Amino acid sequence: MSEGNPTRVVVVGADAAGMSAAHQALRTARRTGRELEVTVLDQGSHTSYSSCGVPYWMAGDVDSGDDLVARTAEEHRQAGIDLRLGTEVVAADLVAHTVTTGSGEVVGFDELVVATGSPAIVPDWARRPDGTTYDGVGAVKTLDDGAAWLDRLAAADADARVVVVGAGYVGVEVAEAVLRRGLRVTVLTRGRGMSMLEDEMSERVNAALADAGVELVLGAEVTGLDLDGDRVTGVHWDGGSREADLVVVAIGVRPATDFLKGSGLELTEDGALRPDPHGRVAQHVWAAGDCCEVRRRIDDQWVFRPLGTHATKHGRALGDNLAGGTLAFDGMVDTAITRFSFGEVHLEIARTGLSRTDAAAAGHDPVALVTEGTTASGYMPEAEPIALWVMADRTTRRLLGVQVVGGHGAGKRIDAAAAVLWAGSTVDDLAWMDLAYAPPFATAWEVLQVAARRVAERL
Amino acid sequence: MSEGNPTRVVVVGADAAGMSAAHQALRTARRTGRELEVTVLDQGSHTSYSSCGVPYWMAGDVDSGDDLVARTAEEHRQAGIDLRLGTEVVAADLVAHTVTTGSGEVVGFDELVVATGSPAIVPDWARRPDGTTYDGVGAVKTLDDGAAWLDRLAAADADARVVVVGAGYVGVEVAEAVLRRGLRVTVLTRGRGMSMLEDEMSERVNAALADAGVELVLGAEVTGLDLDGDRVTGVHWDGGSREADLVVVAIGVRPATDFLKGSGLELTEDGALRPDPHGRVAQHVWAAGDCCEVRRRIDDQWVFRPLGTHATKHGRALGDNLAGGTLAFDGMVDTAITRFSFGEVHLEIARTGLSRTDAAAAGHDPVALVTEGTTASGYMPEAEPIALWVMADRTTRRLLGVQVVGGHGAGKRIDAAAAVLWAGSTVDDLAWMDLAYAPPFATAWEVLQVAARRVAERL
Repeated sequence: MSEGNPTRVVVVGADAAGMSAAHQALRTARRTGRELEVTVLDQGSHTSYSSCGVPYWMAGDVDSGDDLVARTAEEHRQAGIDLRLGTEVVAADLVAHTVTTGSGEVVGFDELVVATGSPAIVPDWARRPDGTTYDGVGAVKTLDDGAAWLDRLAAADADARVVVVGAGYVGVEVAEAVLRRGLRVTVLTRGRGMSMLEDEMSERVNAALADAGVELVLGAEVTGLDLDGDRVTGVHWDGGSREADLVVVAIGVRPATDFLKGSGLELTEDGALRPDPHGRVAQHVWAAGDCCEVRRRIDDQWVFRPLGTHATKHGRALGDNLAGGTLAFDGMVDTAITRFSFGEVHLEIARTGLSRTDAAAAGHDPVALVTEGTTASGYMPEAEPIALWVMADRTTRRLLGVQVVGGHGAGKRIDAAAAVLWAGSTVDDLAWMDLAYAPPFATAWEVLQVAARRVAERL
Repeated sequence: MSEGNPTRVVVVGADAAGMSAAHQALRTARRTGRELEVTVLDQGSHTSYSSCGVPYWMAGDVDSGDDLVARTAEEHRQAGIDLRLGTEVVAADLVAHTVTTGSGEVVGFDELVVATGSPAIVPDWARRPDGTTYDGVGAVKTLDDGAAWLDRLAAADADARVVVVGAGYVGVEVAEAVLRRGLRVTVLTRGRGMSMLEDEMSERVNAALADAGVELVLGAEVTGLDLDGDRVTGVHWDGGSREADLVVVAIGVRPATDFLKGSGLELTEDGALRPDPHGRVAQHVWAAGDCCEVRRRIDDQWVFRPLGTHATKHGRALGDNLAGGTLAFDGMVDTAITRFSFGEVHLEIARTGLSRTDAAAAGHDPVALVTEGTTASGYMPEAEPIALWVMADRTTRRLLGVQVVGGHGAGKRIDAAAAVLWAGSTVDDLAWMDLAYAPPFATAWEVLQVAARRVAERL
C-alpha cells in the first residue's frame, strides 16, 4: 500500500464469496478509516447469482433467471465497486502484484482476492473436440446453463427421456425438476446413491426416487454417448445403456484455479486453496468460496465442500479482515440439506458431521444407530415418517454425526444437531436438551432426541 | 427397603411424568438387579394422554380421544405396573411412609413419587356454588374436558360465538380450533397478547389473529358471566362485555399438591415442588412433571413451565435414579412452540431463553433486535415471511434469548437457538455456525443467523 494512496483490492470472481468480501471490505473500511479501491473481475456476465437455485428454475418454481440474482452488477457498482464482467483472469504474478486478463491487460493490486469458484466438471465423453458439449448435453451450474436447459426442456417431446449422470445433490434436484416438467428420467450413478449419506440412509432416498418414478441405476460409470451427428441419442456404461434425448452432467465441480499454476501458491491435488479463518492464503493474497477447501472442526480435516453458505460466510470474514477487522470463519461441521419432492413423495434429506469412514479415520470408536419416528405427534395430520442416523463416540460420548431422511419438517431438524457438533457437546446433551415440542411440530420427546438417547443408551 | 423384600414404589399421578418414571424404574431395575413393586394411583380414568392434543381434537384434526392416549392402562399393567385409576390421594404421611386415598385406604411406600400434574385454573366466576362450571363453560386440559367440548361444539348453532378467556398457548390453539369448526371467536386477555413473547413479537401474533377473523380484546380482565339459569349467555369485564354461547377458560394451571400440605415438604407459594435433576425432593420422596417448577439453566432460576416435554424427561431421569441409575434432567432453557393456522393465515410461534425482563433481573446488559426475512430463498415458492427477535449480552456476547414468528418452517428454527443456549455459547457462534442451506429451506445465510449477526454487530 503506497502512503496516502488507497489500497488496491482486486477480487477475481463476482459471485457469493467475492462479492461478500467486496461489500464487507467497504463496510469495514468505513469503520476503520481505511481507503480501499475495490475492483472485481469476472469472466462471466452475471454476478451474485444462486447456482443452487438453477434446478428449481428448471422445475418451474422460479420464473426467471433474474430472480436468482441476489444483486445486479448495477447494484454492486452503486456501492462503489469497480465491477468488470466478461474479464477472465488468466495469470497472476504474486511478486509483481499483477493479474493478467484474457485480453492481455495487466491489472496491479495491493491485495488479491481469489474467489473464482468451481465450474462443473464436464468429462470428455460429453464434449466435442472443441470443448463444447454435444447437443442435448449440459451441466447445471451457471445461469447460462439454466437458460440452456429451459430451452432444451421446452423443446423436448412429451415422451422424452432425460438421463442424469450423478446422484449427488444436483442430480437428485434435477431428477425432481425433470419429473415436474412431465418427462421421464433416469439417474445413473457410479456409486450406491447419495454418497454423502450412510448406506442405510441413502437406501431410503433411492426407494423414494423409485416410488416417484425415477429409474435409478447404481454402479453405472458412464463410458460414452450415442450420437446422431452432434446430438445425443443415448448413454452407455459398463454393463448397460439407455436411450436419451437429453443428458444432464451432474458429477461434481472443480476449483477454477488454473490461472494460479506457477504463481507459487500452494494448491491441493484438486486445485483447491486452504485459506485461514480470516481468508488469508499468503501475504497479500486471500481466498474464499468454492475454489477453496473448508476446515471441518470436528476432526480438523480440510474437505472440499463448495456450498454457498460457506462461501458467503468466509467471503464476509475475508472482506472484514481485508479492511482491518477480525471476523473469522471458524470452519464448519459438514452440514448439508436437499429435498426430493414429486407428487405424493416428499423427502427432506440432511446430514451433518462425520461419516462412519471419517470417524474411523479420526480414530473414534463410533456407535451409530437408525431411529424411526414421526415429524409431529403421531395423532396429528402433520405427522410424517422420519428416519435419523445418529453416531457418537463410545469413549468421549461426543456426538459425531447425524443424518435425516423424512417428510415435511424433517430436514431443518439437522440444525439442532449441527449446533451440538459446533459446540463439541455430547450425544447426551442432544438427547436431553430443551428442543421445542407441540403436537403439530414434534413428539413430546422430540424424535431427534429419541434417536440421540437410543445411541446414548448403547455407549 | 426391607432386606429381601422388593422396594415399594408408589407413584401418584398416571400421566407423562408418573408413567415415564414408572417404566424407566422397571427398565433400570432389570439392569441394576433391584426389585421394585410399582403402584400408580390416579384419581382420573385415563393414563398417559396428551393434554397438548386436546385443542387439535376440538379442531377436528384428531378423530378420537383414544388417539391422544400414548399408552393405555392395560399396556401399563402388562409392563408389571399395579395401576389403580379412580383413586385420589388425599394425604401423605412422610414419617409413616403412607398415603391415604379418598376412600380411606392407607397405602404404604418405601419411595413416593409425586407426579400429580397441574389441573386447569377455573375461577369462581365460571363455577356454580358446587364447584362445577356453568353450562357452556369449561377448561381445556383433560380428555374429559375435550369430550365435553366436542359435545358442546357439535350442539352449537352455526352462528354461535365462543369466548376464549386467556391468550396463552392454549387460548390461541383453541381460537384456531373454534375457527376451524366454523364458529365465531373472541379472545379476551388481561394482558397484551401472548405474554411469553416480547411486545414486538406478540403484536405480530395479534395481527395474524385479527387477519384470521379472531376478535382479540386486550387488557380485559373478566369479572363475571351473564347467565340464563345455569347457562352462560355472556362475559363481562371492566369496560366491556360480549355475548357468548360458549366460554373457554384458558388462564393457566396450578400444581395439584394440596394433599401435601402439612406433610413437611416445601412447596412454593403456588404449590409447586422443586426436585433436583434426579427427581429428588426429600429422602424417599421424588417428584417430576407439571406439579413442579423446572430450573432454567441460563439464569439458574426456578420457573413454572408445565410442559409435557419437561415432564417426560424429568420423569425418566427420576425413574432411573429410583432404581439405582444416574440419568439427570439438567434443567431447560425455556423453549416453547405453538402455531395459529386458519385459512390463509399460518403462523408458527416459538421462543427460547430469557425475556428482556428476565435478562434485566439477572443483571445482564442485553441488546435485542428484530430481524425480518424469509423461511426459504426469496425466489422459491416455499418462501414465507419470518421475524426473529434475538437478544444477547453486551459484555459476554452470550446468546440470551430468541423468539420466532413466521410461516411454515419458522417454528422449529428455535431448536438451533435452544442448542446454543444449552451450550451457553455466544451470539457469534449462532451467527457463524454451520446451519443447513438449500433454496427450499433457507437463505444462503440462514435467517436465524442473519438475525444473530445483526445483534452481534451491535454489541
